[in-house]
Order: sequence, then structure tokens, then C-alpha cells
Amino acid sequence: MDNASTSFPKAPGTAEAMTHYINDIGANLNRGEYSDTFSSEEHINNVRRMIADMFGSSHPECVAFTLNVTSALNTIISGLSAASKPVLISSMEHNAVLRPLVRYNVPFVTIPSDAEGHCIINNLKKSAKEGAGALIIQSASNVSGTIQDIPRIAEIAHAYKLLLIVDAAQGSPHVPLNLEKMGIDAICFAGHKGLLGPQGTGGMILSPMLADRLLPLIAGGTGSRSFSEKMPSFMPDKFEAGTQNIPGLFGLECAIDYERNHHEEIESNLQHLTSHLIDGLLSISGIRILGPAADEARTPVVSLTSDLFDIAELARLLEETGNIQTRVGLHCAPLAHRSLGSYPSGALRLSPGPFSTAEEIDFTLDILKCCMQKLAVS
Amino acid sequence: MDNASTSFPKAPGTAEAMTHYINDIGANLNRGEYSDTFSSEEHINNVRRMIADMFGSSHPECVAFTLNVTSALNTIISGLSAASKPVLISSMEHNAVLRPLVRYNVPFVTIPSDAEGHCIINNLKKSAKEGAGALIIQSASNVSGTIQDIPRIAEIAHAYKLLLIVDAAQGSPHVPLNLEKMGIDAICFAGHKGLLGPQGTGGMILSPMLADRLLPLIAGGTGSRSFSEKMPSFMPDKFEAGTQNIPGLFGLECAIDYERNHHEEIESNLQHLTSHLIDGLLSISGIRILGPAADEARTPVVSLTSDLFDIAELARLLEETGNIQTRVGLHCAPLAHRSLGSYPSGALRLSPGPFSTAEEIDFTLDILKCCMQKLAVS
Repeated sequence: MDNASTSFPKAPGTAEAMTHYINDIGANLNRGEYSDTFSSEEHINNVRRMIADMFGSSHPECVAFTLNVTSALNTIISGLSAASKPVLISSMEHNAVLRPLVRYNVPFVTIPSDAEGHCIINNLKKSAKEGAGALIIQSASNVSGTIQDIPRIAEIAHAYKLLLIVDAAQGSPHVPLNLEKMGIDAICFAGHKGLLGPQGTGGMILSPMLADRLLPLIAGGTGSRSFSEKMPSFMPDKFEAGTQNIPGLFGLECAIDYERNHHEEIESNLQHLTSHLIDGLLSISGIRILGPAADEARTPVVSLTSDLFDIAELARLLEETGNIQTRVGLHCAPLAHRSLGSYPSGALRLSPGPFSTAEEIDFTLDILKCCMQKLAVS
Repeated sequence: MDNASTSFPKAPGTAEAMTHYINDIGANLNRGEYSDTFSSEEHINNVRRMIADMFGSSHPECVAFTLNVTSALNTIISGLSAASKPVLISSMEHNAVLRPLVRYNVPFVTIPSDAEGHCIINNLKKSAKEGAGALIIQSASNVSGTIQDIPRIAEIAHAYKLLLIVDAAQGSPHVPLNLEKMGIDAICFAGHKGLLGPQGTGGMILSPMLADRLLPLIAGGTGSRSFSEKMPSFMPDKFEAGTQNIPGLFGLECAIDYERNHHEEIESNLQHLTSHLIDGLLSISGIRILGPAADEARTPVVSLTSDLFDIAELARLLEETGNIQTRVGLHCAPLAHRSLGSYPSGALRLSPGPFSTAEEIDFTLDILKCCMQKLAVS
């Protein structure tokens, strides 16, 4: 029940794809002229194309890989620091957005959210009108599963000429995004959450304009234009210095292929499981569910708080009693918890994955009730 | 014959260790309170300890992991940019040092090397005397296998109060380094070369002083002090934002354990293979070997140039004729090639690994001769 942290299990075949690379290919990218390096490059270019397709970009070369979504966000945010106008962010953003803004001294304005965590459009318009250079917003919350209305938000960004950067770490692949059709300048993604790939993978899909404007955060060898003291200006080399996580990207290729071939089925299952979980939680007294109401669209992330119980103790008991793995606390998102009224104690988060079952949800609900009874009498 | 790019094969069990993590553990670090996250953390702390041991640090928490050695070098070099005094570098440094210096506008002075690629100590002293803040130097060259005399160089760094940063990407584990005994401030390492681990792993071992002074290049969620808008000031969280490459680090744990248990045997084999390779090459006319003479200490990296043959064509023929995989060109190290007199055409690099055999070296030499004959008559 902790798939929002990292999905488990991964897509079938992920470990095998990594093993195949490690044991049978092994070659680096751009760093040799022999057939195994071409084989590596072919796979990495294939996963680039798959990601470009998934996020509506016709420029697979504008997909750059990083260690994680955090590194991608840092690359973009550090590039905004020279801008004179403030950056707008939603009040639901993760520390992967907040901390780089503070680290790189980027002035920012936080747009409030409604009680369910949706960015308040009128406030967004008001702040945009007052002058801003960019908007950074997540497609879905890692705390409450709230989905932002990116098409609507993109219209506002365009009206006020804001760069639009979407943090899709938690939203992908549940919330469809189309870089070109929606006019998004950058989408940052994690490979190891909803995309079902291994940890150590993530990256960004940039518009050709932003790819051109942005400086690389990491400079170094690229196996291209090696005579130059500067990073190559072309994509994806510009943002991929040093040896990349090639086994991880082989795993991601396999995982995205699986996700793509089972997308409808996975999403339908996740929606049923989430509704079932919320329905069950609503029948338990003494807890409050954060975020959207039961009948609204949301991702499979359900967090709860309680005025009666210590949720950290409840999380501990859930594991002890039923081996139910959850995540309790602030979920690296203090802004979101402030927004949702759950700061500073945080919440207990339950996040089923594509391979969770209705029986597991029932079991979770039963154990939860049992643990709450234990806490009530203790 | 391209182990200097990335070792192949990896240490036995590397892919299995990664598969074990992916299929049987799967949990993130610092992001949950259940036993699988503790199991992940235990392994990652173990590999931290192994690396601290290997590089002579009594502070395993001061080992921070990054995507690659390039990212570690960027973290350190970007932190030097505010310094007023220039940074000294050897003329053998890789683009992973040169490009970040240029990217972050760090003023630098290049210390010349002798014909074999050794940093000229008198020039180093002279430039240090003229005023400098830090010295960045590799322990061994990725082009010529030249080993720098780090203990001697460290004495000079101390005498002139320079921060000493060692790029151990190619030197490890062939060239012993001891952070505390030698008084080094930072060692940057690659996990996927001589340490025999998977791509996507690397990092830095910092002195507690430098760990304290340096700002993180990447800020974001750490699962610690989540309420704060700033990165935690403690190690290793300060430099490990976002989800790390946990499968890769499980692989690295296995690889380092193997390397450690077979270190003497591996190094002895590599020395024999390298001598054998150099002896063979010396008997072939029309080529020149870069770097140290046959009887001098060097790592298993042997590059050659030719006034008679097109080395790129030779590399192509080596693969076509004998499936011998090499790397030809500038090896992301234009400075080094300038220093060694092989710029701009570069060199053809042969780099055997721990699992190479004398028979493979003989075969390589035979095919090389055969390819040179083909080129001579064409």
C-alpha cells in the first residue's frame, strides 16, 4: 500500500531486461564504435520515443534522462533563477519543487488550493496578472491524489505568457498530458512510480524552445564534440553528461512497454480499487480522508488523518498486525499538508498499485479497523 | 577491450543482486516505516561503509551517491564558483572536470604534464605559490593509464592550503587512496568501471569539513526534516535528494564485495595483461604508445596512435575482423590528448578488464597486426 513512494511489484520482465543488459550487452552509449554500443543506443532511443509518445512530444531527442524527477526539476528551476519575474507554484507542490526554488533563490508565489487540493483558478489568474515568468504545477498530488486541470491551467499560462512546467511524478500515467497539444514547456517524470520501472530513472520532456534556452545543470563528457570545453548544444546530449543509468533505462523500456499494453486495464483496476478503499474508509468513524470526494476523479493515493488516534502509531500497528506497508508523515510535501489542513502531524497514506486486488483492500480495511480498536482501548 | 569506458563483464552476482532488490525488496529509503525499507537502508548503508573503507574515510555518512562521477564532480565544482582564487587542474583532466569549470565560470589554471602525463610538480608548486583555492586532479588517466603521485601532490596541496579533490573515476581500485591519511578533501568515484558495478552508480567521499561547507547541487525530498524548505544539513541526506538508484546500489554492493575479496588477484592479473599488451605493441612498427614506458606503473589502459594509419579505420577493422571492441578518438579528454601530443586525431584505446585473459591479448595483437597489414596494402 505504498506504491506512491515507489511501485511494487514492478512491471513483469523489468529485472530480466536489466539483467539482459548487464550480462549480455554491457556497452556504454556514444562511447564506442562497435555493435554492442549501437545495441545499447537503440534501446535507449526506443525508450526515448516511447516517452515522447506518452507525453505528446514529436521530439524524442528532447527527452533527457536524469537520476530522478527531482534532478529534472532542479535542472529547470536552477535555470529560472536568473529570471526577474517570480515563479508561480500551486500550494500542493512537493519539496522537489519547493527546495530547489529556495536553493536557487528563485522568487516564487504560492497559489492557494481549495479544500480538496485543486489550484484556485481565480487566484492563479490574479497572480499571473500581477506579473510572473513561469508556473510550476503537479498533474496530481502525492498526498491526496488530487488531479489538477492542466488543460485549463495551460490556457491561463498561455494568456499570461508563463512558461508552464508540469511535475508529473505522481500523475503519470493516470493523468494524460500532451506537451504539444496543451502547450506545456516541460514535463518532469519519475520512472519508478506509475510507469512501473526501476528506481534511478526519471527525466524531462522539454519543448524545443526550452531545450534551447535552458543551461545544463551537470556538465561533463558526452561522447560528442569532445574537443569542446562546452556542453554540446544539441539534444539529448546537452542534458546527459557522464555515463547514464543504462540498466535502469533497459528496465524502464520494458516497464513502459508493459504499461502501454495494459493501460486501460490497469487504470480501470486502480479506479475500482481506489473507490472501494474510499468507500470502506468512509464507513469507519474517527478518520478523515484528505482530498477529493469519493465520486470525483483522483489518482490511487488516499491519505487519512484522525483526531482520535496517533496515525504514526496506527501505521506501525498496520505493519505489525497485517504486514501492511504505508507511509505516514508529511510525504516530503509540507506545503500540501498545510493546504489540506493536515500540517504538522501529516497523514497516513494508502496507495494501491496495478497489481493490488480487491481482497487486499478488504484485508487492509479489516486490519485498519482492528488496529483502531486496539488503539482505542489502549 | 573497452573496460575503461565501462567494465564488462560485471562482477559475478551483480545482476542477481539487482534482481533480488527489484523482485524481493523493492522499498524506497527513508520513506516508510516498514521492515522492507529498513532492509533497503541496511544494504545502502553497507555499501556506504564499504566505500568509506576502500577510500580511507571513517565517516561512511560522508559517502554520497550520485548518478555518476560527473554529477559528483559538478556538485563540488559548482561550489567552488564563488571562490575568488583560481582552481588548479592537471593537464590530463577529463571533460567531467573541464566542462563543469567552464559551465560554472570557475577560473582555473592548467598545470602542465610531462611527456608521459605526470603532473609536473615544480609547475604545480609555482602556480600554488601564485595563489589558488583548490586543486582537482585525477588519480589515473582514462587515456594513457598514467598514475599521479597523489601522496606527493597532497603534501603540496597542504603546504599551500589548497582544497584537494581527486577524480578517482579511472584510478579506482588500482591506485590506493586514503582520504584521511593523505589529507584529501573529496574523492569522486565511478561505480561501473574498476569497481565492477552497474552504470548509474557513482558518488563522492567528502571530508566532514567539505561536507559541511558545500551546498547541494540538487535539492528536493529526502524523507527527512520534510517540514523544512531547506535541504537537511546532515550527511548523506544533504546530497541525496529524490529517489536514489537503489537497484544499482544493490549491484554495486555485490560488485565491491567481489572486488575486495579478489583485489590482489585482479590487480596482479591486470598488471600481467597490461605488460603483455604493451610488450606486444612495442614489437609492432608504425604505432606509438601514449603514456608511461613499459616498465613503469600504470593502470590497464593502453592507447596508441599512428602516423601511418587512420586509427578510426583501424578500430573499425578490429571489430569487423575480430570483434575486438575499442574506443577511438578523444575519450572525452581533449586536454589530455593535447598534453600527450595526440590532439586532435586522438588515439585508439585498448583497456583489458579483470576477466580478460592472456589469450585474448594475444588474439588482439594478432588481429591488430592483420588489420594493419590490410590497411597498409589498401
